[in-house]
Amino acid sequence: MIEVYAFATPNSVKVPIALEEMDLAYELKPVNVRKGEQKNAAFLELNPNGKVPVMVERDGDAAFVLAESAAILVHLAEKTGMLLPAEGSGRARVFEHLFFHASGLSPAFGNAGFFKRSSPEPQPIAETRFAAEAERILDLLEAKLATQRFTAGDDFTIADIAHFGWLWRRAFPGVTLDARPNLSRWYDQIATRPAVQRAITRVEALVPAA
Amino acid sequence: MIEVYAFATPNSVKVPIALEEMDLAYELKPVNVRKGEQKNAAFLELNPNGKVPVMVERDGDAAFVLAESAAILVHLAEKTGMLLPAEGSGRARVFEHLFFHASGLSPAFGNAGFFKRSSPEPQPIAETRFAAEAERILDLLEAKLATQRFTAGDDFTIADIAHFGWLWRRAFPGVTLDARPNLSRWYDQIATRPAVQRAITRVEALVPAA
Repeated sequence: MIEVYAFATPNSVKVPIALEEMDLAYELKPVNVRKGEQKNAAFLELNPNGKVPVMVERDGDAAFVLAESAAILVHLAEKTGMLLPAEGSGRARVFEHLFFHASGLSPAFGNAGFFKRSSPEPQPIAETRFAAEAERILDLLEAKLATQRFTAGDDFTIADIAHFGWLWRRAFPGVTLDARPNLSRWYDQIATRPAVQRAITRVEALVPAA
Repeated sequence: MIEVYAFATPNSVKVPIALEEMDLAYELKPVNVRKGEQKNAAFLELNPNGKVPVMVERDGDAAFVLAESAAILVHLAEKTGMLLPAEGSGRARVFEHLFFHASGLSPAFGNAGFFKRSSPEPQPIAETRFAAEAERILDLLEAKLATQRFTAGDDFTIADIAHFGWLWRRAFPGVTLDARPNLSRWYDQIATRPAVQRAITRVEALVPAA
């Protein structure tokens, strides 16, 4: 059985999307990051880095615990043979985008949102720096999607799932898909996939009613 | 033939280290980032993201171009069967560390250095935020290395090469290995590998004499 410790966050949602696409059964374990539960001692035993998502594969008494959403995506793709080409340049492109997402888009979006919304005092240079970087990265994706259907080529892969997670939460950094027709088309194609909708419904249900 | 567009930067050095460890021939193509050459039109054709390193594999008239240092490491490891377990939990741990590096250590070190050294005006909250994050991540690595020889297990892998690249340039964010004996031992073990020394010598030679 697969357990996923998660919340309705940009990185969490990637794992249920992959699991739904791969038709693998899983149980979601809520970690309410709005209450800081990802820093609780019990959770830090699972992931000392204090971040969701974490995946646990149980097999009898054995448990395999894995953190980092993109590492979980790679693990699941290799386990099922789905959403990641087995070899060649197509495979390398998926990794190129997974690392472009992890090192570029994700910290830009996260920091843009922090300095726009959460900084105890305004930090105008920081706010501008990360907002501009988020826009620059979206422009790169827009250009890429002008010549191919998905971010790593013409097939839907785990690279699209990674990018989608943060695009789904684009209100946090305050960016939009406006005037980016290719990115909008790509986003809508993914958002309307039944597996993606099932995953979003399940992670949104982790948030307690106000 | 393999070409590597690079400079003496934290991300660039990772690729020559892997190539030297794998005993693959390569040619370094200097991209002087101090002069902003990574934003020149010719380089942007190779990598629209405007960052080094970029690897080009040439085979007759065909050229395979790959960006993102960690994606290059994965590609080379899978091509040679070296420095990345072929399956199992050991393989997943390498990816976990590659993404922890890309999404955690790398942006923390880069932004800590920027706000400490390069911001046009002080941004104290930003500076403290990224410096603290860099220290927190080093503490996580120190704890991990207390119970195993290398970051992803007891064997040297591409995950260590990724972490080493930024640790080699730790003066930029202003962090140290002081009071971190396990991380110091790990760093020295890697820094003294002959392949690592050859790679460092070659990337340092890309910097023009002042």
